[in-house]
Amino acid sequence: MEQLFVVKIGGNVIDADAALKDFLHDFAQVPGKKILVHGGGKIATTFGGRLGIAPNYIHGRRITDDATLELVTMVYGGLVNKKIVAALQSEGCNAIGLTGADGNAVPAVKRPVQETDFGWVGDIKENIETITLEVLLDNSLVPVLAPLTHDGNGQLLNTNADTIASAIAVALSKKYQVRLVYCFEKKGVLENVEYDDSVIPLITKEKYKNLLEENKLFEGILPKIDNAFAAIGKGVNEVLIGDAKDLLQNTGSTFKGTLFK
Amino acid sequence: MEQLFVVKIGGNVIDADAALKDFLHDFAQVPGKKILVHGGGKIATTFGGRLGIAPNYIHGRRITDDATLELVTMVYGGLVNKKIVAALQSEGCNAIGLTGADGNAVPAVKRPVQETDFGWVGDIKENIETITLEVLLDNSLVPVLAPLTHDGNGQLLNTNADTIASAIAVALSKKYQVRLVYCFEKKGVLENVEYDDSVIPLITKEKYKNLLEENKLFEGILPKIDNAFAAIGKGVNEVLIGDAKDLLQNTGSTFKGTLFK
Repeated sequence: MEQLFVVKIGGNVIDADAALKDFLHDFAQVPGKKILVHGGGKIATTFGGRLGIAPNYIHGRRITDDATLELVTMVYGGLVNKKIVAALQSEGCNAIGLTGADGNAVPAVKRPVQETDFGWVGDIKENIETITLEVLLDNSLVPVLAPLTHDGNGQLLNTNADTIASAIAVALSKKYQVRLVYCFEKKGVLENVEYDDSVIPLITKEKYKNLLEENKLFEGILPKIDNAFAAIGKGVNEVLIGDAKDLLQNTGSTFKGTLFK
Repeated sequence: MEQLFVVKIGGNVIDADAALKDFLHDFAQVPGKKILVHGGGKIATTFGGRLGIAPNYIHGRRITDDATLELVTMVYGGLVNKKIVAALQSEGCNAIGLTGADGNAVPAVKRPVQETDFGWVGDIKENIETITLEVLLDNSLVPVLAPLTHDGNGQLLNTNADTIASAIAVALSKKYQVRLVYCFEKKGVLENVEYDDSVIPLITKEKYKNLLEENKLFEGILPKIDNAFAAIGKGVNEVLIGDAKDLLQNTGSTFKGTLFK
């Protein structure tokens, strides 16, 4: 099977113009088929403030009310996505920006209300079809996905970018040999969060269990690791977590981040 | 050659939720290959007001400064475009939203500064390539274009939706038999603007000259007519101006609007 890179870039890089420019320059050089999934960044909060839309959190999770959905549709689907697409085009990368509504790329359902009503938050459906993404990839287009999905009944939904990256990596692993690369602000998963050079090069399920028991991992990394193992368990070949600055190494045969197997 | 409909819908319909819903329901029924180009609507002005971005006009033309470009990228490229895409998806139409940057669909250059600096306004290049649009059309995707272009050097640009519709209709007329349908709030070009049933069914260049000499046309329609004849002169088969409510007739063999030949 042909190789495919699914790369996720987060808010901290998106908010830093110079870092984003460098990252997109590198992403444009990644050879072969590739998809970029981007998060939101603080820019939505900034515009929300200017629009008088206060962020609303319950248990650390943002509630997506009507006004917030409009805000993220504008900022993630419009401003951030198109800025990235235009920049990639200038780097000779034939990017095409999508939300999950476009070409029905990422169908979802509104998260069922249990203890908390998260509002317009979408949980991605199982076994999503990849026809649109395949058509684009087969025609040398490079999909750039914003963290938005839809329910097929006309409702856009807010969905975490890490989860979108994982879901499409899984779905596309039937057609491609997929390496899912999560870019963030550290070199990889660190044995000791105070030492940037303490990257754990390989984490197996066994190793993860031990690390959890030893309480060595900082809490923020756990959802990423859970996403990584979920992806591996569902057909993705390799998941790598590493620094946005190391993208070219982390899409190559040697790598600097943490590999999950 | 296969038929292609390029349909342009303006701000007045986009601003009216019920009218937009009806229009998109009809658009989803238009048979065969089709492209939708949408304008902005007053919603950008509304959000601009909330963000403290005052519209800036010179000679009736809006100046696109940095803040306005961000605003229209968010509102046209994000909110309006994705709302339309999600609604079309719910109607069984496999829409995919684009700006001119996506897949390099509409390359442009910043309008040269002469008497007025219009700011980040894009004039569409001559002989634009249609590879991306063809790939989408050939795979039963329905492109939905926002009124934004790019310069290929990373800069997004604001471009009139009528002009985008005309330019892509022209470019695609090499591959398809194109009918370009401009939807607006009247039944067609009216002989007497006070009588809605005074639609002129056919306007040739000769007829247009006479109408201009007789001063019969209201000024607002003139740019649309100029766009129509520009398109005809460059290979588009038919241009039709009509009511958004008459879209199904106006994409059929009988029509209610004004035909340009």
